[in-house]
Amino acid sequence: MSDASLLDRIRIVLARPSHPGNIGATARAMKTMGLSRLVLVQPKVFPDPQAEAMASGAIDVLNQARVCDSMAEALEGTWFATAITGRRRELGVEPCWAREAAAELAASAVTGEVALVFGNETSGLSNEEVAFCQRWAVIPANPEYRSLNLSQAVQVLCYELRLALVAPGSPPPVLGAGEPARHEEVEMLLDHLERAALSCGFLDPASPKRFMPRMRRLLARKGLEKEEVNILRGFLAALMDKGR
Amino acid sequence: MSDASLLDRIRIVLARPSHPGNIGATARAMKTMGLSRLVLVQPKVFPDPQAEAMASGAIDVLNQARVCDSMAEALEGTWFATAITGRRRELGVEPCWAREAAAELAASAVTGEVALVFGNETSGLSNEEVAFCQRWAVIPANPEYRSLNLSQAVQVLCYELRLALVAPGSPPPVLGAGEPARHEEVEMLLDHLERAALSCGFLDPASPKRFMPRMRRLLARKGLEKEEVNILRGFLAALMDKGR
Repeated sequence: MSDASLLDRIRIVLARPSHPGNIGATARAMKTMGLSRLVLVQPKVFPDPQAEAMASGAIDVLNQARVCDSMAEALEGTWFATAITGRRRELGVEPCWAREAAAELAASAVTGEVALVFGNETSGLSNEEVAFCQRWAVIPANPEYRSLNLSQAVQVLCYELRLALVAPGSPPPVLGAGEPARHEEVEMLLDHLERAALSCGFLDPASPKRFMPRMRRLLARKGLEKEEVNILRGFLAALMDKGR
Repeated sequence: MSDASLLDRIRIVLARPSHPGNIGATARAMKTMGLSRLVLVQPKVFPDPQAEAMASGAIDVLNQARVCDSMAEALEGTWFATAITGRRRELGVEPCWAREAAAELAASAVTGEVALVFGNETSGLSNEEVAFCQRWAVIPANPEYRSLNLSQAVQVLCYELRLALVAPGSPPPVLGAGEPARHEEVEMLLDHLERAALSCGFLDPASPKRFMPRMRRLLARKGLEKEEVNILRGFLAALMDKGR
């Protein structure tokens, strides 16, 4: 089983969601990170056109969503569940931060089915609902305003789950970038610059000050391209020609 | 200057946003992570009641948003800008992943003002807009569906920026958790269990099998509370009494 396919063992449970738009946005957030199993416990309005509009290209995730009557039913088949909650809880379940929670869930998916549980937009999760979970987790947030929208919280956790399970690999390659300038080409440009500065009197050989070290530093930046060097040298040649 | 106040040096620039709801949701996403400086380049509709509705408790961020005519104006005063884009670009600007981009932006905010630039919901950023930035970054996503909603992308990046600048500290404390059971209390419970199992004949001293090691493993789990131990011992005592 590949690590990416472990994402299929992680279900996202929304407890009593009020706004169908948030259900749709949740489906989209899940699919962008490769998750597909959405479970809804007593949704207020579902299905609904607003959910479909917000799901955008994740309509398949929405259509496959399972609707349950209770949290117990939603968690059937799981062996580990983490509750996401913004509030401090009057409970003995052990808390952690979202990133650590995602890593733990990802590791737990190797053993079997797991769940990530989110509460109602206004009231959050009840103590009874949290008590079904083995862990609860908090998204680090601004202490003066920690109220993430429901689907935003899902997005952050699904993003963390993907990073925990699927190595992003090398960053996307730079397309259309020119061939990089080599060391000796940059040196030739520096030499050209020095000759041009001397020929126009800008650079006094008796008192060169910091001109050439400055130019070297400017051109030492990573990513200088062969063509840029050629353009600059052509420009210098033209300036020198004109002054002759 | 504290690390948290460096968040004030990071502006979020939305280029030509189409949906006022996304502007509001962006303001909320920013505020939950402690960012406050929103810049809008040629928003299609702004201000708008839908933006206010989606901003929820971040109406202050929305009201302070700066509206600009051009990307150049939006970036005035910054020395470093990162473009977030989902597509591969025909440009030589260096790409990286969102997490590394957030770390680089956070570090760059020490030197001065920086910007994180997001494109239009449908068309993304134009090549001209990306060319204003020193870096472009991609949110790792499902290769089959990488289309994050605009405000979701902002949420992920602001979350990464917060983590890069503000150590979340210890997880929130467990409130209402009882006093933890100490080693010797757990040992007394194990001893009690053994006596109970012997007294009712469940445990044969001549062939104890794995009963006690199993019980020890069960009770070795972290977080057992003093009161739980007391309840279990009371229960055992009552069972033993009844069998007498």
